[in-house]
Amino acid sequence: MPATRSSDPVALFEAARSGDQAALARLLSMVERGGSPSRAVAGLAFKAPGDAYTVGVTGAPGSGKSTLTDRLITLVRQVGLEGGDRVAVLAVDPSSPYSGGAILGDRVRMPSHALDDHVFIRSMATRGHLGGLSVAVPDAVRVLSAVGIPVVLVETVGVGQQEVEVAAATDTTVVVVNPGWGDAIQANKAGLLEIADVFVINKADRPGARTTRRDLELMLDLTDLGEWRPSIVETVASTGEGVETLWTTIAEHRDHQIEQGTLQPMRQHRLEREFHQIVVARVGKRIDTLTGQGRFADITTAMLEGELDPYEAAERVVSEVLSDGAVPPSDG
Amino acid sequence: MPATRSSDPVALFEAARSGDQAALARLLSMVERGGSPSRAVAGLAFKAPGDAYTVGVTGAPGSGKSTLTDRLITLVRQVGLEGGDRVAVLAVDPSSPYSGGAILGDRVRMPSHALDDHVFIRSMATRGHLGGLSVAVPDAVRVLSAVGIPVVLVETVGVGQQEVEVAAATDTTVVVVNPGWGDAIQANKAGLLEIADVFVINKADRPGARTTRRDLELMLDLTDLGEWRPSIVETVASTGEGVETLWTTIAEHRDHQIEQGTLQPMRQHRLEREFHQIVVARVGKRIDTLTGQGRFADITTAMLEGELDPYEAAERVVSEVLSDGAVPPSDG
Repeated sequence: MPATRSSDPVALFEAARSGDQAALARLLSMVERGGSPSRAVAGLAFKAPGDAYTVGVTGAPGSGKSTLTDRLITLVRQVGLEGGDRVAVLAVDPSSPYSGGAILGDRVRMPSHALDDHVFIRSMATRGHLGGLSVAVPDAVRVLSAVGIPVVLVETVGVGQQEVEVAAATDTTVVVVNPGWGDAIQANKAGLLEIADVFVINKADRPGARTTRRDLELMLDLTDLGEWRPSIVETVASTGEGVETLWTTIAEHRDHQIEQGTLQPMRQHRLEREFHQIVVARVGKRIDTLTGQGRFADITTAMLEGELDPYEAAERVVSEVLSDGAVPPSDG
Repeated sequence: MPATRSSDPVALFEAARSGDQAALARLLSMVERGGSPSRAVAGLAFKAPGDAYTVGVTGAPGSGKSTLTDRLITLVRQVGLEGGDRVAVLAVDPSSPYSGGAILGDRVRMPSHALDDHVFIRSMATRGHLGGLSVAVPDAVRVLSAVGIPVVLVETVGVGQQEVEVAAATDTTVVVVNPGWGDAIQANKAGLLEIADVFVINKADRPGARTTRRDLELMLDLTDLGEWRPSIVETVASTGEGVETLWTTIAEHRDHQIEQGTLQPMRQHRLEREFHQIVVARVGKRIDTLTGQGRFADITTAMLEGELDPYEAAERVVSEVLSDGAVPPSDG
């Protein structure tokens, strides 16, 4: 197929829209690797946004996220959502050194969908992408949305800070915990409580599910919640039990946001955050370049000789680098 | 004890230098929480640096890092290092929401040293510290060094990107793996190969230690190494086997760096990186403030209305924020 070998984003988008998985994979590789091809792809996706609903799935390693995601795919393929019945999964793995078109590897992850060309599964690492995961993943999601996929699941491999942020940057965030002493507390410690729209107690056939539910309810009671109180769903992903209820609950959260008129404002808010991260990454890169050119050599030397501490040195650089209107007043 | 209740950094430093653990804990709490007290403490530590030798200990959860660190403490207390026989451990846990003076909790972590007042153990989270772990941990290490502690062990809880960076920012970085298929490869994937000065195969009494050693040697053969080829040490932390050899190997790496004259340049290089991170964090914070003041409202609106993609919008903000000399030329 010629489109796949092309590196023309417009041609690749066209092919991907009509279902060419290899073209889509190619677009995502471009996003992942960063640089100007990534910008071109991201720009095109932004201007033809589509309307994917995004669901984040996060939780500790071993909690059964992948199996749950696998079950959700099957269900979405059956019940669909307005806009079609394609589903995409982005499996976010910041520590993976692999990048680029590992379609086969990604399909092997979830063998039950290997032959279904309405399912697109993709692992994502982001070495090299300026701004990291928090910029690359939204770009990738927009690409998937732009080619007409109505449901995008974003699954994180671990619960590192970056991964939690990425999972939170979706329309509905599902936090997976397991029964057992302290699991709810661990989730809270990892910052998962505040991002959850839906809690899943997976492996709910094991002892302790009731206690875990009570712990979660208690923690929610102690939290200053908004309009939506996170639901708690019990599942056994290995058998599929409860997965239908989970999907219904996700749909309820979606309907709630649409009724309350919060979906678009939330998306805009996320876009603003993303934009802020791009700005900071670019400024950081510019400072790197200037440093490499020896621009702050005198300040650095003063610091290395112990005359300025790193904070004093940083203050000087900041006032050299920022334009007058952006420098904080000296008492600020 | 009056010094402990004081919030005067100078008094706290004086007390901590003469062995007051509570005063030292207080200083570290101040560093951890960020803000201007943190700056005052960091500035004082920077100007009276001390000469602690720092050892990073990292590896996957469950690899036995804590037990190994525990054993290293016992050994260092016996054999010492020039500069005294105090030892400090910073256990870096980015996901922990706890901060501030949890001395008791920290001592319970390693009960065998609970009564030894020459051992200082501290968990460290950094919510609220501008610049995050990569700035807070070096500040904390400098405080420990400034009060005269000659050996500081920095142990990470996981292998998230931030934690790997923090473990790498020490004089000798120890990477802990376990016997078994693929563990060395996992370590490589997590970016641990490139930061290791010493590899520990812990739980070396289990099957597969020889294979793991061979995997590591092979990966080292394939890597472009500097003057120091990372050593591989086998330990059984639970019994203490091999821990003496590990300490000897750490000391060899230290001697190597002193002989080659690389120790000070490496420390300076790390200080420059830290400084860079402070600069970027401050600029980011400034941009936040300006955004909050509505400074970029027109650009943001254009983006939200789809006229500018986030990259185009970011470019405009960057050229507004950076002073003329810092703005990249338009073709760059």
